[in-house]
Amino acid sequence: MQEYHARAARLLQRIHELAAISEDADGVTRTFGTPAFLRGSALVRAWMEAAGLQTRIDSIGNVRGRLLNPRPGAKTFVIGSHIDTVVNAGRFDGPLGVLLGLDLLEHLGEKQAELPFHFELMAFSDEEGVRFHTTYLGSKVAAGSFDQALLPRTDAAGISLAEAIATMGGDAGQLAADALPADQWLGYFEAHIEQGPVLWERNIPVALVTAIAGQRRVGLTFTGMAGHAGTVPMDMRQDALAGCAEFVLAVEQFGLDHKAHLVATVGKLDMRHSASNVISGEATCSLDLRSADAARLAAAYDELHRQAEAIAQRRGLTVAWNPIQQTAPVACDAEMNKLLAQAIAEAGHPVVELVSGAGHDAVPISAVAPATMLFVRCYKGISHNPLENAEQPDIAAALEVSERFLLQLLTKEKLSS
Amino acid sequence: MQEYHARAARLLQRIHELAAISEDADGVTRTFGTPAFLRGSALVRAWMEAAGLQTRIDSIGNVRGRLLNPRPGAKTFVIGSHIDTVVNAGRFDGPLGVLLGLDLLEHLGEKQAELPFHFELMAFSDEEGVRFHTTYLGSKVAAGSFDQALLPRTDAAGISLAEAIATMGGDAGQLAADALPADQWLGYFEAHIEQGPVLWERNIPVALVTAIAGQRRVGLTFTGMAGHAGTVPMDMRQDALAGCAEFVLAVEQFGLDHKAHLVATVGKLDMRHSASNVISGEATCSLDLRSADAARLAAAYDELHRQAEAIAQRRGLTVAWNPIQQTAPVACDAEMNKLLAQAIAEAGHPVVELVSGAGHDAVPISAVAPATMLFVRCYKGISHNPLENAEQPDIAAALEVSERFLLQLLTKEKLSS
Repeated sequence: MQEYHARAARLLQRIHELAAISEDADGVTRTFGTPAFLRGSALVRAWMEAAGLQTRIDSIGNVRGRLLNPRPGAKTFVIGSHIDTVVNAGRFDGPLGVLLGLDLLEHLGEKQAELPFHFELMAFSDEEGVRFHTTYLGSKVAAGSFDQALLPRTDAAGISLAEAIATMGGDAGQLAADALPADQWLGYFEAHIEQGPVLWERNIPVALVTAIAGQRRVGLTFTGMAGHAGTVPMDMRQDALAGCAEFVLAVEQFGLDHKAHLVATVGKLDMRHSASNVISGEATCSLDLRSADAARLAAAYDELHRQAEAIAQRRGLTVAWNPIQQTAPVACDAEMNKLLAQAIAEAGHPVVELVSGAGHDAVPISAVAPATMLFVRCYKGISHNPLENAEQPDIAAALEVSERFLLQLLTKEKLSS
Repeated sequence: MQEYHARAARLLQRIHELAAISEDADGVTRTFGTPAFLRGSALVRAWMEAAGLQTRIDSIGNVRGRLLNPRPGAKTFVIGSHIDTVVNAGRFDGPLGVLLGLDLLEHLGEKQAELPFHFELMAFSDEEGVRFHTTYLGSKVAAGSFDQALLPRTDAAGISLAEAIATMGGDAGQLAADALPADQWLGYFEAHIEQGPVLWERNIPVALVTAIAGQRRVGLTFTGMAGHAGTVPMDMRQDALAGCAEFVLAVEQFGLDHKAHLVATVGKLDMRHSASNVISGEATCSLDLRSADAARLAAAYDELHRQAEAIAQRRGLTVAWNPIQQTAPVACDAEMNKLLAQAIAEAGHPVVELVSGAGHDAVPISAVAPATMLFVRCYKGISHNPLENAEQPDIAAALEVSERFLLQLLTKEKLSS
């Protein structure tokens, strides 16, 4: 364990060194394709080179480092996470998984000749999707599911994704070729901070991720009749805000009633032409539903739609229900999860199983490879915030668990090959 | 009655002529002291002159026209309303009362020599308070309650009230002298569109105003803990928006439970750093409470304060309760209301008694004079909106009722003098 603490300390040093590279002086901001992002990529590539990996930067800007073995027809096991950030980000969301993978491969490198398969470390270039309002640009290229229709999409400055790729030195014509073909994936492993409070509250360093929740997002607009707050009697009102408020509480109650299976959130509420002395004529809100269970997710969506209609009807309002986005739940690979659970137990930790409510690069990758994830406790569950933090002992625990997991995987593959 | 229809038609012509004077080409906007406002004032003054009134524009820009009688020591009965507007206003809010007063005095002018008191028509310059975020600048000057401390207050362009007065040709040093001394007021009458839907729904042209509601305005901020909508379990949340939503519904329910005595409204709700995938950390809302009953108003305020605290406590939130404004209820004069009720009945209409939930110039005037108001039905209760409308038959009814009221007042005064 002492060894892992020293390795965790070094990993933390690298996290802080990478975090010092930012678009702004104060916080950490490295959105896809910016000069700061490119300086960050160059640093990560230099670290991979120093670790003895065979490196390249692909056409979408993923930094990729391979640990090749000489066996003909060997498949590739990928360790990855992302190195782009949100605006005013924390230091751990993404880089923790990349730099943990780097540390693991540095140590595995000594055994390169005996490995039964190749390893590839992927530092994905765009998971957050801040610049082009996309998701998983980097890991979709690696998985071969990049959507060419996104290339003309522009950022806030009017620069297209195709132009951004060219500026980074990439070639949009190479995007498909940069995929790791589906038949060459052996598996995928990603470590990531939990970004939620469960491990923090339960005082446990790591957890096994059993699934990544599917998501449904909806925008609702309740429309009533604006009126003077002083002159319209209470029983003659069609108050859009009151309808919206009733929906907010209905969503919360539904979430509490089904808390073992889903989360349900109204995160945004906007009013049109609002004033303290005007009865609301129009109020808009968001709905964000997440569950690892596709059937429950669909049922929740239908039930809350029904409730929104009922609230509107009872109040003499109208409601517009505008579906915005939906992603299917992704289950982590059962076989790999068994190995990961074993590794957690052997390292002396309780085996906590969590569903990831946040999306991760493991989502597109899971379409082509058996994937699993390890969550690492973070301070109070805070993320996307400069306060985001993971402690050295927890990083040491994650390193030990991950290395035990990889060694079991190697043993298993050696036996079967 | 035929006569009143002809007079109503002429009154409507004047309303449209005045409405054509606006800061913007499309709608009606004449906020205090603007060039459009001054052109409007000049037109109203010209009409007063033509009606034989002795006119002047006082230092706050009120257009005042007197119908003097020769009796020594005679008091003054004032008819008034305002000629400023909100932005993108309707045509009737204010001008209806002024131009109805003008029509009444035009016709009373024939009997000028026999009148037992003076009449003064006051077209107040600022009731809406749009430009300086004030209330009742014009009628407060007339009532002698103008607050000199407002003079340095600036508008959005940085122009002070003192400068605006000078630009209008006024003299801030004359504001106190422009009051009609308290011992000279005989009474005050104001006709105004209802700005609410009661007369429209009940299909009745006019109503007696028994009181102008007192008002309490509060700003509330609920603070919880922002979090990721996907990763924080339902039972570990401190959702500020959900707390705010619960308060919105508590206010509505309280209003419905006490609908005979008050109205209660949350008209504004704002969120800080909101996003559809973020659990709300901070949400702010307004509370607007109005009642003609001071004790009930105070009790409602205390009860909703208690409920806000209880909601916050139960949810692990904090709530800041920030009182913003309070005005006391004003009762209309019982004696004058009796005469007005009699006039309504004699004109053949049911006597509907309403509390005004909106503020009016009658509020500051009632501190120095017995005041009463007549409400006129408006289209669906819509006001502060280009759709604001009052129909000619209702204006005719208002003219007849008002004239009957004044004649009864004259008879009564003649008998007592």
